[in-house]
Amino acid sequence: MEASNQTKHQHNPTKPIRCIVKLGGAAITCKNELEQINGQNLEVVCSQLRQSMIPSGKVVGMDWSKRPGISDVSCNVHEFEDQLSVDSHKFVVVHGAGSFGHFQASKSGVHKGGLDQPLVKAGFVATRISVTTLNLEIVRALAREGIPSVGMSPFSCGWSTSGRNIASTDLSVVDNAIKSGFVPVLHGDAVHDNLQGCTILSGDVIIRQLAADLKPEYVVFLVSFIDETDVSGVYDRPPTELNAVLLREIAVAEDGSWSVMKPALQDINKQVDFTVAAHDTTGGMEAKISEAAMIAKLGIDVCIVQAATSHSLRALRGELRGNIPDDWLGTVIRFLK
Amino acid sequence: MEASNQTKHQHNPTKPIRCIVKLGGAAITCKNELEQINGQNLEVVCSQLRQSMIPSGKVVGMDWSKRPGISDVSCNVHEFEDQLSVDSHKFVVVHGAGSFGHFQASKSGVHKGGLDQPLVKAGFVATRISVTTLNLEIVRALAREGIPSVGMSPFSCGWSTSGRNIASTDLSVVDNAIKSGFVPVLHGDAVHDNLQGCTILSGDVIIRQLAADLKPEYVVFLVSFIDETDVSGVYDRPPTELNAVLLREIAVAEDGSWSVMKPALQDINKQVDFTVAAHDTTGGMEAKISEAAMIAKLGIDVCIVQAATSHSLRALRGELRGNIPDDWLGTVIRFLK
Repeated sequence: MEASNQTKHQHNPTKPIRCIVKLGGAAITCKNELEQINGQNLEVVCSQLRQSMIPSGKVVGMDWSKRPGISDVSCNVHEFEDQLSVDSHKFVVVHGAGSFGHFQASKSGVHKGGLDQPLVKAGFVATRISVTTLNLEIVRALAREGIPSVGMSPFSCGWSTSGRNIASTDLSVVDNAIKSGFVPVLHGDAVHDNLQGCTILSGDVIIRQLAADLKPEYVVFLVSFIDETDVSGVYDRPPTELNAVLLREIAVAEDGSWSVMKPALQDINKQVDFTVAAHDTTGGMEAKISEAAMIAKLGIDVCIVQAATSHSLRALRGELRGNIPDDWLGTVIRFLK
Repeated sequence: MEASNQTKHQHNPTKPIRCIVKLGGAAITCKNELEQINGQNLEVVCSQLRQSMIPSGKVVGMDWSKRPGISDVSCNVHEFEDQLSVDSHKFVVVHGAGSFGHFQASKSGVHKGGLDQPLVKAGFVATRISVTTLNLEIVRALAREGIPSVGMSPFSCGWSTSGRNIASTDLSVVDNAIKSGFVPVLHGDAVHDNLQGCTILSGDVIIRQLAADLKPEYVVFLVSFIDETDVSGVYDRPPTELNAVLLREIAVAEDGSWSVMKPALQDINKQVDFTVAAHDTTGGMEAKISEAAMIAKLGIDVCIVQAATSHSLRALRGELRGNIPDDWLGTVIRFLK
């Protein structure tokens, strides 16, 4: 492990990365049911990703595994004959854990470190089994939509932390995969920490690191529910509260301060502290807004939008890079030039 | 990708690696049934690995996933209270693909390269999905036995080839995992090739690279069947033939020549060419013997033994490092000093 921050690879793109997408854990799993994928949502999310990456053409599946109850695999090589090589996806997918991994991590305290304790070591192993199970299912779902997805565990890629902050990230592996036309699929993972032995590296922190290095055109956070409440983005108060207002555009300044650009309502305190706006008891939305603001400060537009809606499709397609349409629901966070 | 052979990390062990184990694909999967694990064999193999790594103590499972048909997960944190930290495993596991991955790879020709062809790219994705599915199941099976296993895909670890020979292997990730007391579980994988775009990196080639760098005390290949025939090791002719003789000890000399030390039979040509002894039409055993000889030349004892037998347990425990007991069935390949 490295003592200091080392990004072994400086990205020198021949063609810019288009988009980094975060699939929120709550959007793709059933949060209240242990290790249960929300298959319906995941299917829509993957379909929208395909429509955003590969605008035309038929779907030619890339998961040739045996399906339950079917003895043979389905793969018709002739389907590929009239396919053009699609090399312009340039998307990276990062997903959260949702109802995978959290139980194992919290039960053992992996985030607090202490790999010399048998319980923590076992929890590290159990957490990785759970999150890599989810990763494999997401890679499969993307591949079924014809997206050339490749699973990449941060732990296996050699990502590590120092005092829970990213210490070492070798992005050459991710970069090589993108250059070869694949869509890397990363995830929150248990990793080495050179001060406390181990910790949990969250999907949101991974997104920020990737954004800083790969400089995508835009970043999309696909969210779903907060405290059982359906959300469309970031609000001025807990969305469960009456009269909660969806913040449609937030501008982040060079000094880190930010202001609400839309809606231009008199009763919104434009300098609301993030901690006030951050209404998720699990820390999910707070972390998300904070990470989003840091990404926006790099000059990269960030959308926070409800997964599997017409709004998320528009965000994934990059339709919100100019003016925000009145009929679009979500939050755009931008750098104020 | 790198143009020349680059091993980014020179291993400098504080404590030597004890053993690298190859779980042969045919030993842990049902070779004639697509993507079907041989659960019974895998369970015995994992149990023997536990007995070899952790000689005493009760089994405390590390796979806390939800099991089919059971709504809750089983994890009793109190079980870990009286556990001592077991840090002396120093094993690395590499497994083959068996009935996973081969279909997808051969259907698309991933080993021949050409990632710009849609079929090859899809095959690359499909192959990785299949082999990582198997890897996850093996990691789970090891974890259930209380072995702190962590899955590591060569592709994600940044391994790549050049003209199908290993070009770049970053062993620091594997090394860090071992130092933290984990048992890395690698596998044959689809990887980048800087000449032909992509190829298949076999488990046997991975073993040789790991052996050269990690310098284990011994290497064990767990095999099973060849051409439907139950095998115990390497024979002087196809094991299906009448009077095939099990070669119990082979010595490899500095110049690469080798001779049969046991049994001391008159009718065995001690200089039999490997290609004569290599009787597997799929190339499996031929590649294995050739890789085994190269490992032995490094001064590392290699055992080829039938998986899930009393003989494999003795091999895994390192009992064959001195004289080979008369009642042991298998093949030991040693460097002739």
